[in-house]
Amino acid sequence: MVKGKKFRTVKPEIRVIGIDDGFFEPHTRGKCDVVGVVFRGGCWLDGVMRTSIEIDGMDATERIADMIMHSPHFGQLRIIMLDGVTFAGFNIVDTSALFETTKLPVIAITREKPNLGNIRHALENLTFAAERWKMINSEKKIVEVPVSEKKAIFMQVTGLEEEDAKRIVSLTSTRSNIPEALRVAHLIATGLTVPNRN
Amino acid sequence: MVKGKKFRTVKPEIRVIGIDDGFFEPHTRGKCDVVGVVFRGGCWLDGVMRTSIEIDGMDATERIADMIMHSPHFGQLRIIMLDGVTFAGFNIVDTSALFETTKLPVIAITREKPNLGNIRHALENLTFAAERWKMINSEKKIVEVPVSEKKAIFMQVTGLEEEDAKRIVSLTSTRSNIPEALRVAHLIATGLTVPNRN
Repeated sequence: MVKGKKFRTVKPEIRVIGIDDGFFEPHTRGKCDVVGVVFRGGCWLDGVMRTSIEIDGMDATERIADMIMHSPHFGQLRIIMLDGVTFAGFNIVDTSALFETTKLPVIAITREKPNLGNIRHALENLTFAAERWKMINSEKKIVEVPVSEKKAIFMQVTGLEEEDAKRIVSLTSTRSNIPEALRVAHLIATGLTVPNRN
Repeated sequence: MVKGKKFRTVKPEIRVIGIDDGFFEPHTRGKCDVVGVVFRGGCWLDGVMRTSIEIDGMDATERIADMIMHSPHFGQLRIIMLDGVTFAGFNIVDTSALFETTKLPVIAITREKPNLGNIRHALENLTFAAERWKMINSEKKIVEVPVSEKKAIFMQVTGLEEEDAKRIVSLTSTRSNIPEALRVAHLIATGLTVPNRN
């Protein structure tokens, strides 16, 4: 077990990578693009990378770790941020394994509180249901982070103190309620993968 | 001929689209991705879109116009910025035609002064050499824009007063010597299209 990180100070230009998946046709076989966007803090887009994973497959953790570790940005990265832990349907990112492999703390962020009961139910229709459920890390605490008077987002933190994670989420959410790296990863992933009319 | 635009004031949040091409194997047949990135001014990334054009083909102007006009951002856009006028090899964007079709002024920006002699020479080996050369708009003024004490970039402006174009380039170049929409379009286009090791 790699020991969790504690940040003495969080630098305003901390390098984070935000990861999101693109468009895919649910319940089909095939691949789905996954995009990683490197930001310095919440302002400066430093780089973009891509990999692809199988729809409802089991390769998200490995492919994302490979993408990050082969990137020229790897040495500068301090935090991985994920748009939840389910990618391309139910191809689940095991955040503990991702942390162990990359040695980078992982913050999985969702706008709504994850409904673990629904997820467990959905997994029952898939191969490797027990393995997938284990990868969900269902016992991991879901932390509510208030981002405005009325609104909160939710995060699960791996390899990092909860208070540090809150500070990093807050510092990097410069233009909306979620960290800029995740907002932009979503825009890029969907903008590039929506069915092309041209 | 659509009349050129004159901006009374340039709003800090003016919507611009920056367009660049991705990786391709020169002198091959095939397609090359082209990415458009919408920025509000020089700070806020608003959207991403993609099309594809033929390597050394003749379809860049039409495909880029289609991509822009089919985008949900079209109504808000005020300026098109291009990374030069040659895409995917010598698939040339006819900036006059792009302006006529979209009614949006076009600023083509390069870091080095375009060498028209070299371009004309290279075109001689291609089909439609005369048409391509005409699309280059070789008589159009190349404007030098100082961006620091030692450094200048170069632009060709279509459908817009030169002074307005200078102000817009300066306003949107928040983080480097070139407008942020073009810097980020380059990062996305190359990041997503470099040969994938995974």
